[in-house]
Amino acid sequence: MRVLVTGAGGFVAQALIRALPAAFPNAELILTDRAPGPWRTGDLGDPGFIDQLTEAPLDLVFHLASLPGTLAEREPERARRINLDAPLHLADRLAAQTRAGGVRPRLVFASSIAVFGPLGSAPVSEDHPPAPTLSYGAQKWMTEIYLADLTRRGDLDAISLRLPGIVARPEGAGGFGSAFMSEIFHAARKNRLYTCPTGPDATAWWMSRSTCAANLLHAATARDLPPTVTLPALHASLRDVVEALGATQITWAPDPKIETLFGRQPPLLAPKALAAGFRTDATPKALVEQVLHDLRTDAAAPSSLL
Amino acid sequence: MRVLVTGAGGFVAQALIRALPAAFPNAELILTDRAPGPWRTGDLGDPGFIDQLTEAPLDLVFHLASLPGTLAEREPERARRINLDAPLHLADRLAAQTRAGGVRPRLVFASSIAVFGPLGSAPVSEDHPPAPTLSYGAQKWMTEIYLADLTRRGDLDAISLRLPGIVARPEGAGGFGSAFMSEIFHAARKNRLYTCPTGPDATAWWMSRSTCAANLLHAATARDLPPTVTLPALHASLRDVVEALGATQITWAPDPKIETLFGRQPPLLAPKALAAGFRTDATPKALVEQVLHDLRTDAAAPSSLL
Repeated sequence: MRVLVTGAGGFVAQALIRALPAAFPNAELILTDRAPGPWRTGDLGDPGFIDQLTEAPLDLVFHLASLPGTLAEREPERARRINLDAPLHLADRLAAQTRAGGVRPRLVFASSIAVFGPLGSAPVSEDHPPAPTLSYGAQKWMTEIYLADLTRRGDLDAISLRLPGIVARPEGAGGFGSAFMSEIFHAARKNRLYTCPTGPDATAWWMSRSTCAANLLHAATARDLPPTVTLPALHASLRDVVEALGATQITWAPDPKIETLFGRQPPLLAPKALAAGFRTDATPKALVEQVLHDLRTDAAAPSSLL
Repeated sequence: MRVLVTGAGGFVAQALIRALPAAFPNAELILTDRAPGPWRTGDLGDPGFIDQLTEAPLDLVFHLASLPGTLAEREPERARRINLDAPLHLADRLAAQTRAGGVRPRLVFASSIAVFGPLGSAPVSEDHPPAPTLSYGAQKWMTEIYLADLTRRGDLDAISLRLPGIVARPEGAGGFGSAFMSEIFHAARKNRLYTCPTGPDATAWWMSRSTCAANLLHAATARDLPPTVTLPALHASLRDVVEALGATQITWAPDPKIETLFGRQPPLLAPKALAAGFRTDATPKALVEQVLHDLRTDAAAPSSLL
């Protein structure tokens, strides 16, 4: 079988790629990213590059490439190409493979909780209606709808997973307004000062990279899943996570805009996603242990990422 | 001021165009349709044609062109071009006009209640979450999201109106699964036999063409409207409308697929749209009187349509 991973140089993709050989021992992996690296380097904003990637039949695609939210807000034309046109054209190419009589490919699309926009303080269910306030979230949502429609038609077998804040991204990774969720881990690990752009009572939806990769694999292999899944993230305050980390050098300088967009998440109820086999990091302590384990693994064997 | 109307040869557009000179006495009207006629003929599926239409600045655009639902379902590639790529590219061009320092154009987009898909029997509110089961509805919904996002950014001033079944379309107009809603009017008027593909208890959301045109004009001119409006349609059964028509030669041959998609509409509660000044045909009798008046006007002066 042939498996394509887009955004292969990305943070989540690297954990996924490490897990793929065990899950699909005989798979031929096709990796691509815009950045130079040990993969096919190219720009998914160019439809011709997507045509090349999909020239030979594919059985499974993980579409993880995207332009992050803050960057997308600043560069609307590029955001449209990367976050909307690219997944739609990729989906069309895969649908064309099905219509031509080939295998109907499974497509796992990394959507985002950015589709929701700011939520109130009351608990929300996994089926809460989206109302994005960033172009990034609007583009993810539009892609979800497009993929669900092609799947309804039978031309594709797609699933969209709404990813929460995945931690810990590499230090200083740009373009993410939620970067503070990762920076506290690096500060704790290196016993360094960090000024967090939220207050300690800010709440977010968290997931470790390992749990995220496991969920992507589950989405690829389990049957009878719904077309769109809000992953069952851990709801925790910054204080909870900082305490579990034992970090002592965090200071707080709340930025109202960042708090509103990324630090006001209400409790999330996702019983259907849990029943469908998706996983969560159960407690702040479990999250911290998994993330620190992931970071040690990366540090010990950076070259094993691919 | 310069006003563009796409789909100018269409049924709703013709009523709108007739009403435009009174509403905007000094407007220069730019009309376009794919069919040959007294307008700029061209295919909105060709981005270059949209570029031409938007070369000179526009103040107001009514985007009414679309590939109807049944046709869209049969021709997915053409549907994507007409129902998704065209409005998005048009919106991008208008946003570019704003970003270049020009007037921020008003865009009135004809969306559809097809965004909802089949609803239950309980009354639904105008804010009911969409769940389309036709590509047509998915494409309209995606466009709504895109326009709302550009409006949020300040690059555009768009409003999406979800149109119900507009009656009476011309006899034998193709591609509409809801054609039966119009055919009963023609059958009644000509005292002709008509076999309706629903039962008499099928319920739909109805609006006369005059009321629809008035709502489009209201959307163009009123201030502080929400980005997406479900129009306050008349909820009535086929029996109610046939009785108001005094039609005696209708027979019933329910097609389960058509009934499910177009004949199971629950009561619609749209207090916000009504408070915002959008109109409805209040009763089956009022609907029928308006539609028969519209049909007489058309028959008396077909050449005045443009």
